[in-house]
Amino acid sequence: MTSLKEKIYSQIDGMEKELISYAQELIKFPTVSGQEKEAQEYVRKVLEKDLGFDEIDIWEPDIEEMRGHKAFITQREDFKGSPNVVGTLKGAGGGKSIILNSHIDVVPEGSHDEWCHPPFQGEVAEGKIYGRGASDMKVTKASFFIALKALQQLGLKLKGDVLIQSVIEEEAGSAGTLACVLRGYKADAAILPEPSVFKICPATQGSTWFRVNLYGLSAHGGKRYEGVSALEKLPQVISTIQQLEIYRNEKYAHPLYKDVPIPFCINIGNVEGGSWPSTVPEKVSIEGRMGIPPAEELEDGWRMFEEWIDKTAETDAWMKEHKPDVEWFGAFWGSGQIDMEHPIVKTAEQSYQEVTGMSPVLAGTPWATDARVLIDFADTPALVFGPGHTAHCPDEYMVVEDLVNYTKMLASMLVDWCGYQE
Amino acid sequence: MTSLKEKIYSQIDGMEKELISYAQELIKFPTVSGQEKEAQEYVRKVLEKDLGFDEIDIWEPDIEEMRGHKAFITQREDFKGSPNVVGTLKGAGGGKSIILNSHIDVVPEGSHDEWCHPPFQGEVAEGKIYGRGASDMKVTKASFFIALKALQQLGLKLKGDVLIQSVIEEEAGSAGTLACVLRGYKADAAILPEPSVFKICPATQGSTWFRVNLYGLSAHGGKRYEGVSALEKLPQVISTIQQLEIYRNEKYAHPLYKDVPIPFCINIGNVEGGSWPSTVPEKVSIEGRMGIPPAEELEDGWRMFEEWIDKTAETDAWMKEHKPDVEWFGAFWGSGQIDMEHPIVKTAEQSYQEVTGMSPVLAGTPWATDARVLIDFADTPALVFGPGHTAHCPDEYMVVEDLVNYTKMLASMLVDWCGYQE
Repeated sequence: MTSLKEKIYSQIDGMEKELISYAQELIKFPTVSGQEKEAQEYVRKVLEKDLGFDEIDIWEPDIEEMRGHKAFITQREDFKGSPNVVGTLKGAGGGKSIILNSHIDVVPEGSHDEWCHPPFQGEVAEGKIYGRGASDMKVTKASFFIALKALQQLGLKLKGDVLIQSVIEEEAGSAGTLACVLRGYKADAAILPEPSVFKICPATQGSTWFRVNLYGLSAHGGKRYEGVSALEKLPQVISTIQQLEIYRNEKYAHPLYKDVPIPFCINIGNVEGGSWPSTVPEKVSIEGRMGIPPAEELEDGWRMFEEWIDKTAETDAWMKEHKPDVEWFGAFWGSGQIDMEHPIVKTAEQSYQEVTGMSPVLAGTPWATDARVLIDFADTPALVFGPGHTAHCPDEYMVVEDLVNYTKMLASMLVDWCGYQE
Repeated sequence: MTSLKEKIYSQIDGMEKELISYAQELIKFPTVSGQEKEAQEYVRKVLEKDLGFDEIDIWEPDIEEMRGHKAFITQREDFKGSPNVVGTLKGAGGGKSIILNSHIDVVPEGSHDEWCHPPFQGEVAEGKIYGRGASDMKVTKASFFIALKALQQLGLKLKGDVLIQSVIEEEAGSAGTLACVLRGYKADAAILPEPSVFKICPATQGSTWFRVNLYGLSAHGGKRYEGVSALEKLPQVISTIQQLEIYRNEKYAHPLYKDVPIPFCINIGNVEGGSWPSTVPEKVSIEGRMGIPPAEELEDGWRMFEEWIDKTAETDAWMKEHKPDVEWFGAFWGSGQIDMEHPIVKTAEQSYQEVTGMSPVLAGTPWATDARVLIDFADTPALVFGPGHTAHCPDEYMVVEDLVNYTKMLASMLVDWCGYQE
């Protein structure tokens, strides 16, 4: 390790309190969808006052302008109260630019009774910071701040531009990052600190929700032979979906997922049907989530699923005449990947090795991320790489030591990627 | 046919208008559970004023007195507003007594938009009377009235007592008839004109509702291998229930059900489970209805079902440790039967043959009826035998000609069973 890096790491070690303080401030804003405004104002203020960013762009994305884009999906009527923030720190010139992208929105915290540490207080206990967004993924914005601040305090000026994107709507289909892309923001690479447990992820899985409706014929349960149970068709459909999952995982086998039991899961999450215990159910619906492998187009995944359901219906005299419907409802996220040998991957690997002394692990994500939007629509090689490892659960937390280490890795990547002047 | 019977039938033919009028009055009361009072007052008035009944007993059953009886079940807190009526027409003596039992309650009519003929008007069109209860089973009370009135007008006095029971809560588990039994009412036989399409039914099937809860382990759908899907256990349980149905129908094969495709159906009516498309479902529940064959005790049916579910759980490593629950919720009705050669069966057969000139058909009911309560707890041989053939559906109807014929059969049975003096 160079003495420069040692100086940077030591500087960051001295800033742990400040790092935690930023993290806590960020957690305190309950930034569920529609309530991001105050938090984004806070981010803007930090970028402007604490870090001296040159340009800060804060805007509520215009839903009408985004409609029609193939990657656009939302359940909202508009994005009032939900601004995006993009701050640009101009480099000295001659270096590569980088986007640090993290979403400000969090999934709902659920019942507070489930939390031992309140979801919006940022309590620190036994080396962990607790709260909604501690891991996924507000707290890593504090790493962005401290990494840049440490470099500034050491008198280092980066050559490439640094863009911090604090985006909305990641949890609901990437509309925030898409809005940044449509506004023209791009860079030579991007880092997204989703909670990958320090795994470096050049591949991001997509996912899409489905609903399958099965139809029967109602009758009194005491004469059920006069009807046809939609529920009795379900086992065939479950079995088809299980076989399809096997087929897809073989077809799309990917080196970055080789250690994952089922890389591209198809999960049936909900089932509902029938109207009365003693009536033959005339409709049963299942809802689920299908993973989209990095090499697959979303539309191809949809078509394959529909074909398999159709094929199953053909094998059953009733379903042949009373075809199940497939609906693609709710959210969807495409998949994306960059070359495993891409320089940003190498930069990330090196930063991990330097800070931890351990070998980095490459992987693909088990969930969808905004990386895909940057890769496919902003021509920006985007890498998922973050310290967290809990998400969407009560007592979500970040290990303080992990956060400090990640901040060091970020600073290291910035110096290596963007270049610097002393 | 004797000239007496000819006289009776001719008398009844002349009373068709009056028969329809009673039927219409009965339909006009919307006697869903809890709203039977006015209709029962009307029944009382007819028995008293039009038919000169000697004793009329009208009372709201006391729920507390009934609790603890093995056949008692209700979803209600009390029976306020829901009186039973039992009228007794004393015979001249020396004859056999008979109970004519019909329930006053009807199932809810559902959306009125589904009805071409309003549910509570008793419209007559193209030879049919329409309305909720036209078939199941208010309208046959009009047959009770006219059969007795015709005999009276012909100067015939029956030797045995006739008890008309107009009962509540048949649709919700037989509490009304049970209340009559507990009050001491019994007779040498009973007729229940449930809509058996003129089939004579010495056997009545029971039924019971079940709920099976299957348990899994929740996880993110993208890592579904970290969880266990409760839904994936469902096909095994559906298959078990299908096999159990086959087993039960073989074990309890019954001559009265020999022409029925599945005499004692097990219907799974409802299914529900999961909380989110992208979450592995940790609980899935099914609800259904199991038929109880005439020769089976309800409790034995419950035990058999539980044992089969337990046995299935034993074959699955997860279910072995996370056992499905079986709940017997909602309503249950025991089964019952009388000898196929019982004199009341012969009396019914003869009445059918006389009136229609056709051979009677013996069968067992596909659903539960109050007959079981009379058979098992009042020592009263009870026979299901009625003209209707629609039930629980929009545009429920009774064919006027069937109603007239049934009235003739009733009068014939009364004369033959109770004996008479001119």
